[in-house]
Amino acid sequence: MSLAVAASGAGHYVKMVHNGIEYADMQLIAESYDILASVYGLSAAAIGDVFAAWNATELESYLIEITAIVLRKRDATGGALVDAILDEAEQKGTGRWTAQSALDLGVPLTAITEAVYARALSARRDLRRLAAEAFQRPAQAPLAASPSDLEAIRRALYAAKIVSYAQGFEQMSAASEEYGWALNLGEIAAIWRGGCIIRARMLDRIMQAYAASPPPANLLLAEAFRNAVAAAEGDWRRVVGLAVASGVATPAFSSTLAYYDGLRRARGPANVLQGLRDYFGAHTYRRLDKPGVFHTRWGQDGEEVAAGSPG
Amino acid sequence: MSLAVAASGAGHYVKMVHNGIEYADMQLIAESYDILASVYGLSAAAIGDVFAAWNATELESYLIEITAIVLRKRDATGGALVDAILDEAEQKGTGRWTAQSALDLGVPLTAITEAVYARALSARRDLRRLAAEAFQRPAQAPLAASPSDLEAIRRALYAAKIVSYAQGFEQMSAASEEYGWALNLGEIAAIWRGGCIIRARMLDRIMQAYAASPPPANLLLAEAFRNAVAAAEGDWRRVVGLAVASGVATPAFSSTLAYYDGLRRARGPANVLQGLRDYFGAHTYRRLDKPGVFHTRWGQDGEEVAAGSPG
Repeated sequence: MSLAVAASGAGHYVKMVHNGIEYADMQLIAESYDILASVYGLSAAAIGDVFAAWNATELESYLIEITAIVLRKRDATGGALVDAILDEAEQKGTGRWTAQSALDLGVPLTAITEAVYARALSARRDLRRLAAEAFQRPAQAPLAASPSDLEAIRRALYAAKIVSYAQGFEQMSAASEEYGWALNLGEIAAIWRGGCIIRARMLDRIMQAYAASPPPANLLLAEAFRNAVAAAEGDWRRVVGLAVASGVATPAFSSTLAYYDGLRRARGPANVLQGLRDYFGAHTYRRLDKPGVFHTRWGQDGEEVAAGSPG
Repeated sequence: MSLAVAASGAGHYVKMVHNGIEYADMQLIAESYDILASVYGLSAAAIGDVFAAWNATELESYLIEITAIVLRKRDATGGALVDAILDEAEQKGTGRWTAQSALDLGVPLTAITEAVYARALSARRDLRRLAAEAFQRPAQAPLAASPSDLEAIRRALYAAKIVSYAQGFEQMSAASEEYGWALNLGEIAAIWRGGCIIRARMLDRIMQAYAASPPPANLLLAEAFRNAVAAAEGDWRRVVGLAVASGVATPAFSSTLAYYDGLRRARGPANVLQGLRDYFGAHTYRRLDKPGVFHTRWGQDGEEVAAGSPG
């Protein structure tokens, strides 16, 4: 348990995760903006209009609403204010603590953690300038943004946001169990819905999901979110693929998709990790076809032997 | 500073980062295996042959060498041993501590952190089984693996590995400064080269990079790595794009590419984060066109005012 967590109780913990989710929400917004600006060549004001339209959909939330206002804002120079704002994000620590606690709990909290790292990278402005000279991005004519392109980004944003919330709520669930807090996750969603920076229409669906009996093992498995993600999946892949091909960094979009693809694999590639760990460290492995713990005598006769206990 | 770091000195810290890098190396190997198995339909033994061939290239390393051995190994059933090994990776904590320390230091350590989270996700086998039923992956006929496809994966693996080492060495550099250790990064590479689990030909190039005067601000800017990454970039994008389109989770390949794309942006999208932070929390922002710290009175007259100090 990190120092930050040890010093606080359940209420502080929930507020900390709230702030972590806020980091991820904002990072997903910044990545959406970046795709619209860098791939499609839209102006800040035009992107503001896109966000205003999105705020009339299932994405409705305080952060989407104020993104539209911030992007449309002009300053004294006559240009868009955001075009003059320095691209170096500050942070006060709660995102970092959230990630550190998730690591302690063994909860894969990829969206929030990537958001924290993206802010850290934004703060390395001198290094980024050097790297921009060393690795020049090929000039690419802006694509025309069709309504279906905009809709694809909107759906990708919603899917990524669902994964981010699923991760954050899983963290609160794990913390509740670990520290004996008996957190009521539906009630937390209701409180956040009532008023806070991440207030959003989507929290209604989270409340409904946790009202079910039994509650879902993971928010992605709740019917409303399962359907939304399944419907968005093709667009989500298309948007991430476009960003990858275009050289636009989308760490939160990418990591949430990778999490989703890892989650829905009944059989993943960690068998290889276990084989390697047994080879170099005799850490043993389990098998699919029989119970017990095994070790292969790699450097000796190559035979598999039953091992006492997992290493 | 985390408890783990506080309790240890420079030597322990370096060993911890070594183990973190080992996590990322193994995760990149597992993702390469997964692409070869899931997208191209290669058998474990055939993938073992691919890794054996890769070990005669710039990827030469102990972990690549033993991956070939582990993948080619048959067990008593007559099949490949890895096909029988349970896909649930264990961990002893050093990867997690490395990530937690990076968060403390504000160093974007995406590859190692994603590797730690991938192990955590692998351990959620019951949840993965539920998710696999809820989100079925469309059947897709295996692609034929041409020599250029294999070469693309090899080059992507090398580029991702370079980013992972650049992140790990940046972390040691930051820790050295923060804790007053005066670490000699070239010497660390030489010691690792001499014998440890991540020993690799590539460490020679790291030693050479840090022998330069002045040393590179980041390993990606050292000539040998800059050239290797620039040469691999197209293949790297192609491989990540293929994984994204195919539904194969490649969190370490994706996060290293996102880091690279974020690093080489002299102007990133964090201006939006700062605009939002100023809107909802009056956290202020800086401008590109003039010094000072500013706040816009969003809810009042919309005027920009000079603010005392960064919030």
